[in-house]
Amino acid sequence: MTSILNTPHQLKSQAIQGYLKAHPKLKKLKGQPIIYHQTTDETIIPIISGGGSGHEPAHSGFVGEGMLSAAIYGQLFIPPTTEQILTAIRHVNKGKGVFAIVKNFEADLKVFQEAIHLARKENIPVKYVVSHDDISVDTKNNFQVRHRGLAGTILLHKLLGAAAQNGASLDELETLGLQISTQIATIGFALTAPHLPGAIEPLFPLKEGQISYGIGIHGEEGYRTVTLSSSEELANEIVNKLKLRFRWREHERFILLVNNLGTTSELEQAVFVNDICQLLELEGLNIPFVKTGKFMTSLDMKGISVTLCRLIDEQWLDYLNAATQAPAW
Amino acid sequence: MTSILNTPHQLKSQAIQGYLKAHPKLKKLKGQPIIYHQTTDETIIPIISGGGSGHEPAHSGFVGEGMLSAAIYGQLFIPPTTEQILTAIRHVNKGKGVFAIVKNFEADLKVFQEAIHLARKENIPVKYVVSHDDISVDTKNNFQVRHRGLAGTILLHKLLGAAAQNGASLDELETLGLQISTQIATIGFALTAPHLPGAIEPLFPLKEGQISYGIGIHGEEGYRTVTLSSSEELANEIVNKLKLRFRWREHERFILLVNNLGTTSELEQAVFVNDICQLLELEGLNIPFVKTGKFMTSLDMKGISVTLCRLIDEQWLDYLNAATQAPAW
Repeated sequence: MTSILNTPHQLKSQAIQGYLKAHPKLKKLKGQPIIYHQTTDETIIPIISGGGSGHEPAHSGFVGEGMLSAAIYGQLFIPPTTEQILTAIRHVNKGKGVFAIVKNFEADLKVFQEAIHLARKENIPVKYVVSHDDISVDTKNNFQVRHRGLAGTILLHKLLGAAAQNGASLDELETLGLQISTQIATIGFALTAPHLPGAIEPLFPLKEGQISYGIGIHGEEGYRTVTLSSSEELANEIVNKLKLRFRWREHERFILLVNNLGTTSELEQAVFVNDICQLLELEGLNIPFVKTGKFMTSLDMKGISVTLCRLIDEQWLDYLNAATQAPAW
Repeated sequence: MTSILNTPHQLKSQAIQGYLKAHPKLKKLKGQPIIYHQTTDETIIPIISGGGSGHEPAHSGFVGEGMLSAAIYGQLFIPPTTEQILTAIRHVNKGKGVFAIVKNFEADLKVFQEAIHLARKENIPVKYVVSHDDISVDTKNNFQVRHRGLAGTILLHKLLGAAAQNGASLDELETLGLQISTQIATIGFALTAPHLPGAIEPLFPLKEGQISYGIGIHGEEGYRTVTLSSSEELANEIVNKLKLRFRWREHERFILLVNNLGTTSELEQAVFVNDICQLLELEGLNIPFVKTGKFMTSLDMKGISVTLCRLIDEQWLDYLNAATQAPAW
């Protein structure tokens, strides 16, 4: 697939420069892969997140008042270093500590935990939550649930960001983060596999007309590949997997996030949203908040992921509806 | 290209239902292809726009306080009917008249002008502006400038919407609309041609690795097809064409809108934004407002269009920065 780029090794730095030009409220820490926004209110606990590149607008697009204080980005699909995360923690800390949102991938956990450990040694209180919303299974490993951190991570950014804005303490953010993260589930499908920028071959084989269910966001294949028949069939499979996870009852309330994984057209996304909403309605569920768009992409993959979050506290709705300056929400 | 859809003939109605579910502040007029929002302030002149489908989020995504009062959509690439536009005019009119923003295509002009004529016969004052920002040329017709209505139309939605919100009269909107529309220019490129939903063949031939400059938004080929070398080269051609149009001087001020034509990845778009901004900077221009995203797409086409608007009145910046409820701004 032909890509719009200059030299691959400068891809991320050029993209970040472009993103900053389009969003002048975001700032980059000099010489560091850290995007932050200037805060003035010292009573608000700063929240950070980060990870490999290739998932734009995550996480830099969620930096802004009401969401993240800073995002640390790595190279394509590779997390930032421990030192870079530590630098971000030091930078945003205003004396009351820092909260981190970490996606559940081995490499991400390692660097974040090391950085948190080092920050604590410097007497910066840091707490964190791990996002593990992926409910797809690994067919090569006894159908184990994968528990990777996917688009549900962005709901943590928004809910915890609003809670922090609302004056939540570091301990309260930890409690709330755990409460939310265990109520989120994500599952998606792809019609095409992503291409590394400039590469001709996709990251996994997927024939024209076929779909892969349960794909990851780094070019990981899903649990099943079948011929696509209709949007309704896609929605049916997704809702079924979510139902098995949540075992919901009629009238239960959920938040719905439909995430364009990269290059799904607006028209197709809207058709799919209609099918998903219809099926959830038929299940008797109550969906007081729906959000659609690009949140956590996988380069140029064509596909969609669906995230549900069980609404166990009505205040979460206020947090979702609260204003934020983050450009990608 | 495989598409996420059910039956093609219900594509748009299902997509609209999905869009309404994701954006509950938008309403659909029963039995009509008209999306509107409830306004309470009778002093604000309502603005309408519309056209064929396939350009989502245009125009329904720009309905909301501070932008359009209603959008009328047609079938794929086919404008709505005269009667439907007239119905929309009657619906939004609160006694002070209605303003329309019309893209410069023969079929669109015809139905809008007929509807405006009929509305005036019913004593509804209607004024309008034609958006004709496309500066690409028709190589089959003596290199005539095409003057089609492209993504620059969305700047008219925003600027005039904010002016109306600010109390502008129908006459003032007409004057301002003309002033703005003559200061807007758009030109773009595509890496792939769009596919009609479910179609295997694209709407024009474009080999892997090639780009077409000056494409339209209905599958019209551009004025030149060449092998893609880099994002910088794309930006250079685009800036050159814009320079020939505006014949700018150093320190002149412009608004920049970079429009994802459908399926460009976030990373590639950001790299291109960086290149465009760098070149405009080197020209000595001052760009106090940059907006990027999906505004006027062409189904699943991969490509980008660039719109510049010469800032001849600083109040336009206030209009651009004014709050709006429209979901796609």
